Amino acid sequence: MLLQVLDSTLRKLKAQTANICTMVNLSLGCAALLFTLQDEFKLALIFIFLAALSDRFDGMLARKLGIESELGRQLDSLCDLVSFGVAPALLIYQTVLYDYSVPGAFFTILYIACGAFRLARFNVTESNGYFQGVPITVAGCLLTLSYFLAGTVSTNVFLVLLIALSFLMVSSVKLKKM
Amino acid sequence: MLLQVLDSTLRKLKAQTANICTMVNLSLGCAALLFTLQDEFKLALIFIFLAALSDRFDGMLARKLGIESELGRQLDSLCDLVSFGVAPALLIYQTVLYDYSVPGAFFTILYIACGAFRLARFNVTESNGYFQGVPITVAGCLLTLSYFLAGTVSTNVFLVLLIALSFLMVSSVKLKKM
Repeated sequence: MLLQVLDSTLRKLKAQTANICTMVNLSLGCAALLFTLQDEFKLALIFIFLAALSDRFDGMLARKLGIESELGRQLDSLCDLVSFGVAPALLIYQTVLYDYSVPGAFFTILYIACGAFRLARFNVTESNGYFQGVPITVAGCLLTLSYFLAGTVSTNVFLVLLIALSFLMVSSVKLKKM
Repeated sequence: MLLQVLDSTLRKLKAQTANICTMVNLSLGCAALLFTLQDEFKLALIFIFLAALSDRFDGMLARKLGIESELGRQLDSLCDLVSFGVAPALLIYQTVLYDYSVPGAFFTILYIACGAFRLARFNVTESNGYFQGVPITVAGCLLTLSYFLAGTVSTNVFLVLLIALSFLMVSSVKLKKM
């Protein structure tokens, strides 16, 4: 009886492993947002990269354990928008663009909107071994890395980077899946 | 020739009207986030409610114009997570819970995670005229309204509200669609 309960619990846990990993990704992205609110920018940066690591694992895990699900795919996109769309955009806005008035806000919002469109398009497109447009994970990591340029280059560089990443996400550029 | 181009452009614009409305919802939610970062809490609150208004319209518009699409549905969920998950949670965190250390951060993240799960489950469930769990739009508006209680009630009330809304979103409570 006890073994049966244990076996059923382990089976359920296995089925949810990838989703738990996705939720860890989201939690790390949310923690990055809270650190940005508290002006703890280096911690925010570290948590975005931890979210990227966790994001790398959940898909691999789901495929390896044969537990890929439609719920998991939906959850993954929602979490990616927070961890690699909203979190990096707010980090760069708060460290560099906050005194850039309307253009700073406009291009920050544009980046998040293009990220959302990229994820929605991905969810309704048949997989064929290629990504259409740069994935939001890559764009988010590049935007987060640009934090290290703060104070050394003109603010315009960040605006150009935001525009370029927004365009690359919604473009039809084809990239081979790794 | 000119009429043909005009007709085709108008047709494309009609097809995208609901998606443009969804993007307006997302932009208003993102603007609310930027206002929260700048400690402009009242403006953040107004923009979350404007996002809710816009959210009410896009679905109605899509149904009325007969232009419902899978891309539109995906986009809608992604935008809802930002405007009614992340934006209200960060507003309440920054105005009330910021000095509540780990529990404040934990329950803020829990609320966003439950919102993401609610949206993912909604996307993979067949529609039957009922909502399963309180919609994130309702939860987000209630959480935003609680801003008016800041300073008049104990911080614990906000924690209880976050836990209750998180639970109600992922619960199996059935609500008739309006």
